[in-house]
Amino acid sequence: MGSLGDNLSRMAGGDTNNPLLDPEEFRRQGHMVVDFIADYYKNIEKHPVMSQVEPGYLKTRLPTSAPFYPESIETILSDIENHIVPGITHWQSPNYFGYFPSSGSMAGFLGEMLATGFNVVGFNWMSSPAATELESIVMDWLGEMLKLPKSFLFSGNGGGVLQGTTCEAILCTLVAARDRALRIIGNDNIGKLVVYCSDQTHCAFKKASQIAGIHPNNFRVIPTTLSSSFSMCPKILQKTIIDDVEAKLVPIFLLATIGTTSTSAVDPLIPLCKVAKKYEMWVHVDAAYAGSICICPEFRHFINGVEGANSFSLNAHKWFFTTLDCCCLWVKDPAALTQSLSTDPEYLKNKATESKQVVDYKDWQLALSRRFRSLKLWLVLRSYGVEKLRGFLRSHVKMAKLFQEFVMGDERFEIVVPINFATVCFRIKSNIPLNTERMNGMIRPMVSINEINSKLMDSVNNSGRIYMTHSIVGGIFLLRFAVGASLTEDKHIVEAWNVIKQHADVILNNMNNHNQ
Amino acid sequence: MGSLGDNLSRMAGGDTNNPLLDPEEFRRQGHMVVDFIADYYKNIEKHPVMSQVEPGYLKTRLPTSAPFYPESIETILSDIENHIVPGITHWQSPNYFGYFPSSGSMAGFLGEMLATGFNVVGFNWMSSPAATELESIVMDWLGEMLKLPKSFLFSGNGGGVLQGTTCEAILCTLVAARDRALRIIGNDNIGKLVVYCSDQTHCAFKKASQIAGIHPNNFRVIPTTLSSSFSMCPKILQKTIIDDVEAKLVPIFLLATIGTTSTSAVDPLIPLCKVAKKYEMWVHVDAAYAGSICICPEFRHFINGVEGANSFSLNAHKWFFTTLDCCCLWVKDPAALTQSLSTDPEYLKNKATESKQVVDYKDWQLALSRRFRSLKLWLVLRSYGVEKLRGFLRSHVKMAKLFQEFVMGDERFEIVVPINFATVCFRIKSNIPLNTERMNGMIRPMVSINEINSKLMDSVNNSGRIYMTHSIVGGIFLLRFAVGASLTEDKHIVEAWNVIKQHADVILNNMNNHNQ
Repeated sequence: MGSLGDNLSRMAGGDTNNPLLDPEEFRRQGHMVVDFIADYYKNIEKHPVMSQVEPGYLKTRLPTSAPFYPESIETILSDIENHIVPGITHWQSPNYFGYFPSSGSMAGFLGEMLATGFNVVGFNWMSSPAATELESIVMDWLGEMLKLPKSFLFSGNGGGVLQGTTCEAILCTLVAARDRALRIIGNDNIGKLVVYCSDQTHCAFKKASQIAGIHPNNFRVIPTTLSSSFSMCPKILQKTIIDDVEAKLVPIFLLATIGTTSTSAVDPLIPLCKVAKKYEMWVHVDAAYAGSICICPEFRHFINGVEGANSFSLNAHKWFFTTLDCCCLWVKDPAALTQSLSTDPEYLKNKATESKQVVDYKDWQLALSRRFRSLKLWLVLRSYGVEKLRGFLRSHVKMAKLFQEFVMGDERFEIVVPINFATVCFRIKSNIPLNTERMNGMIRPMVSINEINSKLMDSVNNSGRIYMTHSIVGGIFLLRFAVGASLTEDKHIVEAWNVIKQHADVILNNMNNHNQ
Repeated sequence: MGSLGDNLSRMAGGDTNNPLLDPEEFRRQGHMVVDFIADYYKNIEKHPVMSQVEPGYLKTRLPTSAPFYPESIETILSDIENHIVPGITHWQSPNYFGYFPSSGSMAGFLGEMLATGFNVVGFNWMSSPAATELESIVMDWLGEMLKLPKSFLFSGNGGGVLQGTTCEAILCTLVAARDRALRIIGNDNIGKLVVYCSDQTHCAFKKASQIAGIHPNNFRVIPTTLSSSFSMCPKILQKTIIDDVEAKLVPIFLLATIGTTSTSAVDPLIPLCKVAKKYEMWVHVDAAYAGSICICPEFRHFINGVEGANSFSLNAHKWFFTTLDCCCLWVKDPAALTQSLSTDPEYLKNKATESKQVVDYKDWQLALSRRFRSLKLWLVLRSYGVEKLRGFLRSHVKMAKLFQEFVMGDERFEIVVPINFATVCFRIKSNIPLNTERMNGMIRPMVSINEINSKLMDSVNNSGRIYMTHSIVGGIFLLRFAVGASLTEDKHIVEAWNVIKQHADVILNNMNNHNQ
């Protein structure tokens, strides 16, 4: 603890030697931390996957103020072990199936270490040419792996940039689209701009729209249905746009998703882009989760039609083994981005920028400062290579299918929507026998099927053995089982299904006992 | 090189063993990278500080596509040494004095490693309680070290959050202020909102204003002058606001700066906040650079008046030894932020959030996903402690003063504005004898004094021995000598001055020779 450490180092006359940056001490402490993390991975299954702490737990364990005297790395690591690790939900655990994976990897980690070690601030080419040039190169590499149209690559006058998250990528492209329209209709007409998405679109878009000053009344949400697997309907989109145009509003932006958060639904790019093109709208394709697997030829068809879009993004930190944060954004028209996001203060002026021979990525993103993120993506691509990367992704799909088979083999359960990638949406079936009660003259189940599934999730998660999350679509509470953690193997899927079955047994038996 | 590596691993039957995440291989490769970085620091002075590469250099050295087969860490590290390091401008070099420092430290590095190792996505409390709770705790610790009013701390119903950069902090607070106003005057009136800053304010504010949809005509820039050391004048601000109010516009936001980018100027918070208060404007204090040193009692007066502001931010990655990126933002009214930035999709709903007992930081920032940044700030605070941190900062100020003395001791040079912190703004004097020419009947110097100083900067930077950057204020081209790199010692200041003198000798002698 801080206060104890304080006293110790005071008693010892403050002999804790923590220089700001001494190569040999850096080496010693760096090796200790590598060992700490390697041991963490080795023992990761010993921890409950979902943290079991209560709100406010850490305040009771840490001092109320920063220490006055230095503390040793040994003390700090011991505090991390004792006080931080119990408060972590272990996204790197092989038994983690929540949200979407945050797929770390050795290569991603080493790349991040190198970026942190160099600690350059690559806002423009000049400030560290390698940071900019490597980014442009790997974005072309990855774009080619995805078979993106050449118009999205630097080699075809488009280009790619690494953002922190998809939220930023969406906001940047939305602002570019907004300003493109405002240059035509005038800044006074910002209140007329309309944007479109589906009811399955990630909440990041609503937030981006809010930040960009789009009038709250002009945020259109196209409803989806189970019968079309929650994908966006181009006809309803077109009808909605026509209504807006008739009302003298100006459609500017469509967000289409490949792999929605709730059910991994896929919006049909070809017809959607066709509609958008009629109205000269910007189409952004958010493939945050599912984009990665399109490097496998048999999955590439999911982004067919991307050639009709203006921009495309995926999160390499989600399912591409590149530690948080690393969102890959490609645009066809970089000038549209830079017209909105450029700054040119005197203190950043330099001959390279003036020569127009270089990319200054500060003008492709929200912030000025930027980390050397391309290093980790480069290390992932090189350490594993295309073949092995495809293999990792396919193994996750295979494990998801294995899990799906388990679900389908148990008549108490059902798959809610067909699996597209490596996330299984399932639940306890709605037609299992349930206790009933009479209420307002109606016979209805005492516990709704949604409540039972919610109970199952809580019960499983509280056990700490595996971790899953949920969603509700079309009124259906579903359990999401997202395979993709880097340490997960077949045996973890088998065991996960056992855990789920055991907890379902208890919950369903309890209900039956009540019945008797 | 990639292609060679490809061939080698192909020839060797692809025996490069790079698992996604195997603890023992992670340990082996992790130690190699720690050693690589330790050696980089040890030898950092051997590299030219400013990268000497030409635009496009890297494309000629790397393969045109990603490798199909895995490559070994040995191959990759050798490529980094040979191809990346020459393209880096070495921000961690003790001879780096450009822009503002990007002050890395051992503790910051280790904290980043741990965050990358855990690789949790702490968007809400639930997703990893320790990430949220540690952040709230260290923000209160640091807030207390800065003697921020209690109203900015969680312990006083305000609170702190870690953002990536000041750009994000400004955009978040601006959007909060914008929406606070729009809730009163209605969303249709976004075109009436006006924001204020000085001509020395960082370009991030103009960009944030643009992103947030503030009408370009409503971005007010208060002019500053050399005679008031480029600080913002409250009277001119007040006059500008009055004009806007008379024109039926709505003032909403003032950005005040403590330590501007060009000259480290300080805006007077007490009178500025007084003006802003009259018009119920939001005041954000951007202390990105100079905020850190306010942990030293003798520097705290620079932020006197902050109690009248609504929000305050500093970049711990700038001059607080916390590797990029780590911006600390405190707000008095977190609800104003979360009213603008909250999202509540079904797939993120959870009991902890519903209990209202926890902070969900996703609602305090632009993006959803967020790294475990507080770990590195915590490690910096604990590894060094308050006393040593003050000592590091004071040593930089002392070195800047030493440099200032060298400048003042050479009659060819002058200090442009008094030094406030650890950045010296200087130039070759305007009254040194210069060759003249007759042009349009006027006698004028053949080379302007600004051109001479620009030449001096280029000459020094091209030597690779030290690195400085420039600005132009009030028509004066000045050289900025920013002390703060973690490895810099007195001897580097002495040597830097020698380098500058040598290059000035050559430039000024050449001119005199022309004269003879």
